[in-house]
Amino acid sequence: MKIPEQGILLRIFIGESDAFKNRPLYEAIVQQARSLNLAGATVFKGIMGFGADSRMHSAKFLRLSEDLPILVEIVDAQEKIDLLIPFLDENVKEGLITMEKVKVIKYRHS
Amino acid sequence: MKIPEQGILLRIFIGESDAFKNRPLYEAIVQQARSLNLAGATVFKGIMGFGADSRMHSAKFLRLSEDLPILVEIVDAQEKIDLLIPFLDENVKEGLITMEKVKVIKYRHS
Amino acid sequence: MKIPEQGILLRIFIGESDAFKNRPLYEAIVQQARSLNLAGATVFKGIMGFGADSRMHSAKFLRLSEDLPILVEIVDAQEKIDLLIPFLDENVKEGLITMEKVKVIKYRHS
Repeated sequence: MKIPEQGILLRIFIGESDAFKNRPLYEAIVQQARSLNLAGATVFKGIMGFGADSRMHSAKFLRLSEDLPILVEIVDAQEKIDLLIPFLDENVKEGLITMEKVKVIKYRHS
Repeated sequence: MKIPEQGILLRIFIGESDAFKNRPLYEAIVQQARSLNLAGATVFKGIMGFGADSRMHSAKFLRLSEDLPILVEIVDAQEKIDLLIPFLDENVKEGLITMEKVKVIKYRHS
Repeated sequence: MKIPEQGILLRIFIGESDAFKNRPLYEAIVQQARSLNLAGATVFKGIMGFGADSRMHSAKFLRLSEDLPILVEIVDAQEKIDLLIPFLDENVKEGLITMEKVKVIKYRHS
């Protein structure tokens, strides 16, 4: 087994309709993460949820389905995660960010 | 950067067909979380999985796709999370719940 | 409330097109987890992401959508998780694995 390293799991809970300029905020976050050479990013779409505004969003109801919950996950070293925080502070207007320590094993083509 | 607060990430792994009265259990959990004024909840649907019953469920096989895995995630302060536990203890018949400490940064419209 | 036990959350970030023999790697991982009598496994599919190869994958662009991000999650005791690691070390060629401690409450039909 490869030796795990200490890392940070950053999780960003926003809405599908949250925008950055003229595109989805989650796309902008992933692009920013890539620009900063972070190790990777993954975006998941929820089927239901509510957040700070306490409005319920669900894939079941078409009219509200335009703002389904989005989760962006990024795993990297603390100092790489820190590079992304100013962008999030400036552009996430409503949402939730969590950070937690994780052990990380990376696999790569050599 | 805003100062992170200590919080709890509660994760509830159940099945899509688990029911509470005449509706999906995951919907009932989210509604209960909202009734208790928790900060938010997000529901994700998996594409494959197995659990306590060790039966495999997969979106690939139509007949079994009716019980795809569901994950409900809630982030809040420990005392708010504790409010939801009695409802889960009573109504989650088969499933898995995990709790872990996370640092939380909230963004809201002021 | 039932007494939580210490457990490990294992998270495996790979791609949808990663293969093991002639089937998806994520399927093989879930089958292996079941063969080893682990408590459960759940597979989630992302809508966008990038990883070690730094290529962007998105459900928006048809040509690249064949390799959307996949996350396999497994929660169990450390010694059960350890049983799965050799299979992952051998068969995950490119990807990321994280491990973190969680408190676990299990619900089962008695």
